[in-house]
Amino acid sequence: KMLQRVLCTVLFMGALPSLAEVSQGHISVVLLGATGDLAKKYLWQGLFQLYMDQVSSGHSFTFHGAALTALEPGQRLMFDVLKKLACPPDESPNRCAVLKDQFLKLSQYHQLKTAENYTVLNREIEMLLRQEGLKEAGRIFYFSVPPFAYTEIARHINSSCRPPPGAWLRVVLEKPFGHDLESAQQLAAELTSFFKEEEMYRVDHYLGKQAIAHILPFRDQNRQFLDPIWDRHHVERVEIVLKETVDAKGRTSFYEQYGVIRDVLQNHLTEALMFLTMELPANVSRTEEVLQSKLQAFQSLRGLEKNSAVLGQYQAYASQVQEELQKAQDYISTTPTFAGVLIHSDSLRWEGVPFLLTSGKALDERVGYVRVLFKNRAYCTQSETLRDAEHSQCKAKQIIFYIGHGALNTPAVLVSRNLFRPVMPEGSWREAVGQSDLHVFGQPLSDYYVYSPVKERDAYSVLISNIYHARKDFFITTENLLASWGFWTPLLDSISHQPLRLYPGGVENQQLLDFEMVSGEVAFTLAEPVELLNPNRLMPSDYRTIQSKFRQSPLVSAWSEELISQLASDIEKTASRTVAQSGQFHMALSGGSSPVVLFQRLARHHYAFPWKHTHIWLVDERCVPLTDMESNFFSLHNHLLQNVRVPYFNVHPMPVHLNQRLCVEEDRGTELYAKEIMALVANASFDLVLLGVGTDGHTASLFPRSESGLEGAQTVVLTESPVKPHQRMSLSLPLINKARQVFVLVLGKGKHDITTLLSRVGHEPRKWPISGVSPSSGQLVWYVDYEALLG
Amino acid sequence: KMLQRVLCTVLFMGALPSLAEVSQGHISVVLLGATGDLAKKYLWQGLFQLYMDQVSSGHSFTFHGAALTALEPGQRLMFDVLKKLACPPDESPNRCAVLKDQFLKLSQYHQLKTAENYTVLNREIEMLLRQEGLKEAGRIFYFSVPPFAYTEIARHINSSCRPPPGAWLRVVLEKPFGHDLESAQQLAAELTSFFKEEEMYRVDHYLGKQAIAHILPFRDQNRQFLDPIWDRHHVERVEIVLKETVDAKGRTSFYEQYGVIRDVLQNHLTEALMFLTMELPANVSRTEEVLQSKLQAFQSLRGLEKNSAVLGQYQAYASQVQEELQKAQDYISTTPTFAGVLIHSDSLRWEGVPFLLTSGKALDERVGYVRVLFKNRAYCTQSETLRDAEHSQCKAKQIIFYIGHGALNTPAVLVSRNLFRPVMPEGSWREAVGQSDLHVFGQPLSDYYVYSPVKERDAYSVLISNIYHARKDFFITTENLLASWGFWTPLLDSISHQPLRLYPGGVENQQLLDFEMVSGEVAFTLAEPVELLNPNRLMPSDYRTIQSKFRQSPLVSAWSEELISQLASDIEKTASRTVAQSGQFHMALSGGSSPVVLFQRLARHHYAFPWKHTHIWLVDERCVPLTDMESNFFSLHNHLLQNVRVPYFNVHPMPVHLNQRLCVEEDRGTELYAKEIMALVANASFDLVLLGVGTDGHTASLFPRSESGLEGAQTVVLTESPVKPHQRMSLSLPLINKARQVFVLVLGKGKHDITTLLSRVGHEPRKWPISGVSPSSGQLVWYVDYEALLG
Repeated sequence: KMLQRVLCTVLFMGALPSLAEVSQGHISVVLLGATGDLAKKYLWQGLFQLYMDQVSSGHSFTFHGAALTALEPGQRLMFDVLKKLACPPDESPNRCAVLKDQFLKLSQYHQLKTAENYTVLNREIEMLLRQEGLKEAGRIFYFSVPPFAYTEIARHINSSCRPPPGAWLRVVLEKPFGHDLESAQQLAAELTSFFKEEEMYRVDHYLGKQAIAHILPFRDQNRQFLDPIWDRHHVERVEIVLKETVDAKGRTSFYEQYGVIRDVLQNHLTEALMFLTMELPANVSRTEEVLQSKLQAFQSLRGLEKNSAVLGQYQAYASQVQEELQKAQDYISTTPTFAGVLIHSDSLRWEGVPFLLTSGKALDERVGYVRVLFKNRAYCTQSETLRDAEHSQCKAKQIIFYIGHGALNTPAVLVSRNLFRPVMPEGSWREAVGQSDLHVFGQPLSDYYVYSPVKERDAYSVLISNIYHARKDFFITTENLLASWGFWTPLLDSISHQPLRLYPGGVENQQLLDFEMVSGEVAFTLAEPVELLNPNRLMPSDYRTIQSKFRQSPLVSAWSEELISQLASDIEKTASRTVAQSGQFHMALSGGSSPVVLFQRLARHHYAFPWKHTHIWLVDERCVPLTDMESNFFSLHNHLLQNVRVPYFNVHPMPVHLNQRLCVEEDRGTELYAKEIMALVANASFDLVLLGVGTDGHTASLFPRSESGLEGAQTVVLTESPVKPHQRMSLSLPLINKARQVFVLVLGKGKHDITTLLSRVGHEPRKWPISGVSPSSGQLVWYVDYEALLG
Repeated sequence: KMLQRVLCTVLFMGALPSLAEVSQGHISVVLLGATGDLAKKYLWQGLFQLYMDQVSSGHSFTFHGAALTALEPGQRLMFDVLKKLACPPDESPNRCAVLKDQFLKLSQYHQLKTAENYTVLNREIEMLLRQEGLKEAGRIFYFSVPPFAYTEIARHINSSCRPPPGAWLRVVLEKPFGHDLESAQQLAAELTSFFKEEEMYRVDHYLGKQAIAHILPFRDQNRQFLDPIWDRHHVERVEIVLKETVDAKGRTSFYEQYGVIRDVLQNHLTEALMFLTMELPANVSRTEEVLQSKLQAFQSLRGLEKNSAVLGQYQAYASQVQEELQKAQDYISTTPTFAGVLIHSDSLRWEGVPFLLTSGKALDERVGYVRVLFKNRAYCTQSETLRDAEHSQCKAKQIIFYIGHGALNTPAVLVSRNLFRPVMPEGSWREAVGQSDLHVFGQPLSDYYVYSPVKERDAYSVLISNIYHARKDFFITTENLLASWGFWTPLLDSISHQPLRLYPGGVENQQLLDFEMVSGEVAFTLAEPVELLNPNRLMPSDYRTIQSKFRQSPLVSAWSEELISQLASDIEKTASRTVAQSGQFHMALSGGSSPVVLFQRLARHHYAFPWKHTHIWLVDERCVPLTDMESNFFSLHNHLLQNVRVPYFNVHPMPVHLNQRLCVEEDRGTELYAKEIMALVANASFDLVLLGVGTDGHTASLFPRSESGLEGAQTVVLTESPVKPHQRMSLSLPLINKARQVFVLVLGKGKHDITTLLSRVGHEPRKWPISGVSPSSGQLVWYVDYEALLG
């Protein structure tokens, strides 16, 4: 009855659809959590907007608010919200008033608590359709409820509220979708047992922000300009930023479990990142291709490590948590409220370009943007004062997708005028004028072409319209969600006990949260302010490198960083001296984790190293292909060889892989390597051998009680390791002891026990192979860090 | 007598040396060209300054002006100059007046024209010394004469004016030192026949400019700050710039022969470049080490090509030349008056950093500077308006050695305040203040620590003092000079008929001379204004690459340079497409000389090449060790592999050297290679095989009537070449024909006959192995240059 009445009114208004036109069918929208905050603030308004936009589409609608509240108070609460629905400024007040009246009549409250409630709702929808003689097009269930309620609601909808065959079901889900990969997988598995993938619409409301939603269309419509420059050769860096001035007060019960990375970076900023980095499908309106391409972009991301992020917490957060969650005074929260993360993509297009994702609460301003800064490749001969400001190639070139707030206070797309004049869709974006005195991103606003939306639309209106149009590329698929958690979870795990930089909040933060990229990592620019430091902790620089004796040989000791830098320069000195004397330098290097830092240091700080004249040999190798992650050579290659210029001929990996098989006796790999050494290294006496020590006293791949390699004439041997991979190839102790110089590197607390032991025992290579290292005419030096030495 | 009188005065003044103190010995300075422009303007003043500085040094001095002019007019001319000598502002007027009086008395004019004149001069010096009872310390001969006069003067000095044993000789030479490598070698050889290397002081007066002279001391004194950042990881670019407002009017007879590169870039700017890029010796006061290190820096420079430079000529130059040199109206000068050159160093420290050298006449301002711009690696969380201006890490970081003129109008060293506070030698440099409203290099002056010299000293005064102190590192050694010409001459040769961009001069130039870096080359940013083009001259780009058919397969033909560039980009396209499809790209390359140019082009211009995913195989190899100059792999390594980043595992040299012997059947190298191919290349079908053709029709190492490789199942074979080294390893024809793409490159007149023959014959691989190349399911493309095709 009610629907018919409304339809009559609609017909009466002329511009609205005739009965024939509503033949597209009827859509029932069920909003679960109809009286909650999100519904009040955005969702009802979004549904009203949908109604206004689609009233002439041929579809008819009913809107069902639902909650746990009993019918009567629920009805009251809901209609209080609906009465306050606003008319958009671009709508005629008359038409809007009429439509609002209709919308109210088409909206109804339901208590949805028990299984029966759902059956009843289903029956009511079916009845209404029958009564009005309408074909059913589909049903939208919008979950605006806490995640713990998802499963039960999903079960009820699946069992009682599915539309009949031929009509679609769309369930709309709001984050959080888990808090790490495992929980996300679990939640996804549950939902998948109730809904098909195409039925699920996971909302990330950032995909409804007009500037973000326009990234892909912009890339598509400006292909001719972007194709030649949208790559690592032209892009210097990308910043994806969401700064907030508010803090977490009043929301700490939620926030304390999530923190800024789960709240903002894993979802909103990552989605923006994907829109920038994904390969553009030939047709961006093909949802499936867009989703596929986005998934590929995820796969190109380089894994994050602890030092990929800087983290902070505003100072008041601790007391807010203590108060709101009734924690003890000594409770320490490790939840970050600020994060800056450096991301790299290993795709050919983006390799080496830094993507900086930053977000935080209690910052100095509220603003969100995606900024692509291009490299400056120009030299301007004319002096600065005389340059033509507008088109000078020496000015910064950038493209900014401005999400909103901040100095511009509107969504916008900015393109530097010396870059190109962008193609923008005329109906929806227009060139903005004015405010020429404004400076944004280091330049006056007049340096940019600036476009803003013709109609500013709320993200939820955009998204609700996209649900209606089944634009799944504006939502997070299960694969997409799991790819994102798969990317972020290792970082979240590794930083869970990371110290946080405390910041006062607001403008007081000053430069406290500025950070810098150094060798693929990030670090705060300013040292930790002294008053915030634990005064009991000694700083590395408080200690000097200790030089003394260990096992009758020289000992160099320091904090590990300093020790590595000392070792690296000692190696360079040895190399330069040897090359000056004999024209070449033969160095045998060990595998394992300790040398990695050394390799990096050598690659990054020792430009004068005579690599061209250096031969690289392996001390030991695991019996795996050289391209295996576990291979010592692979690690050496990744951390050192690919960054320096050792001639191909001077690189000597161990021949563990011969005739397509690994370390088989009769392939005689050990003999081959021994011959190669004999042929190239004078007297088989390496200029330098770098060794490590295992907790069991092994060195090279010579393990306690090894049957080969500890004595005898064999120079290269096959051995067995107690840990996987068991098979190894190794230089023998007698060969090592022929070296002119042996450096032993020992790092970390884990080595304290063996270090202590070694300081006391004599020459017992069968028990502790390292104790047999004693160059017959060369020099042995121990490099042991404080943690290994002092525990 | 005169000297004694002066010495008495000197003694009388107290602050000046006693007779005992002059026991250091006597120095005779002979200024040849004593009445010329340079002498008038700078040299006499420099000598007077030397006298003022060194009067108490223990040395006594006499100054001998010399020229071709007869005694009397010469004396008059010279004393006119001497009378005008100025007292420096930091000298007390009294002392200066006394010293000037002495200086005049110690100075004497000589006519030096004939051999006898030189003998007389020598006799006079000897007599004077005898009379005064002075020991001789040494003689300085300053050549301020045109270069054509050098040889004769040198001969006279060598034969008649050498000081006795125990005293030194220093001859000071002014540029030009030749106009290319050959002429410089010739001139150097001549001088070397008269003087020892340590006796020659070649002046580049830029090394006397205070800002340039301070580059090395600055790097030395600020090692602690610079060590971690003075490299390719931190430096974004370096600009070395000398802009002039004057033009060449009145000097075209000189300028027309030299041009801006020979006049400024080859010497002044290159020397500054060396001071920046050279490795810092442990002790910068060790002249020999500095010179050695500088020479090494020269050796690291990457060769220049035509497109390494942009060139211009101010419009009035043509008519100035026509007028001054009485040339015909249709005379066209190809002398550049403006040049921007992009230089790369291949040292590990600087690899990839662009060094831009720029100089020109008739520009908008007079200024000279060396600017090191660092990369911005920071993200500043605080909004721009709130940032602490002075120390923000988001502001540009730069170090500028400001030579003079321009906005600052003084020599200066500028260091961004967010970089570090530099250590400066207190006595000679002081912090400058004021002019806070001035903007330099994109920033207010207040963003920098600014230092200027305590005493501003003219370059010649500095240099004359350095001659006195035998600081040879302030002068250009023969090796240094030849290294510089060796570097610049190939560019000068390749651009000698290059079109020049005409520019109006002064501020009118606007952006006409702005240029940009693109893939290791430079180009003007603005397209050539149409009206300035010579309509009659055909440009290389007016020719199109010919595309047609050869032996039923596609043919690409062009002049060799263009052909190579086309082939290189076709290879890159194939590589990128293949990697996109299958994740890897297997390419087999031939040896020989033709591919070398291709390898160089690939290494220098194809930065987007997916090397990381490319496997490199050999088409054929000579049976010599891989490190032998004759090895195909060695050449491939030198010209390609060492300049790109192909992972070690992806490089597959042929195993011609096994068990310390070459290509022995039973070592089964061919089998080994075949197995490796089978294991890694899907279906043993290479993605690309690059072949050449011999004049006998051989390809790969498959020679006419070869017993193996032309047919049969064997994929890798041993063959015999008619030329040395006879033994070869080669892919077989059947294997080559399995490739997905085969490119055959044929270059040069020498290949014209075989090319003509091949165009006529059919499939006869036993006669002409190349005729058997016919991929079974792949594509064959011929790349034949015009010389091979057309003879």
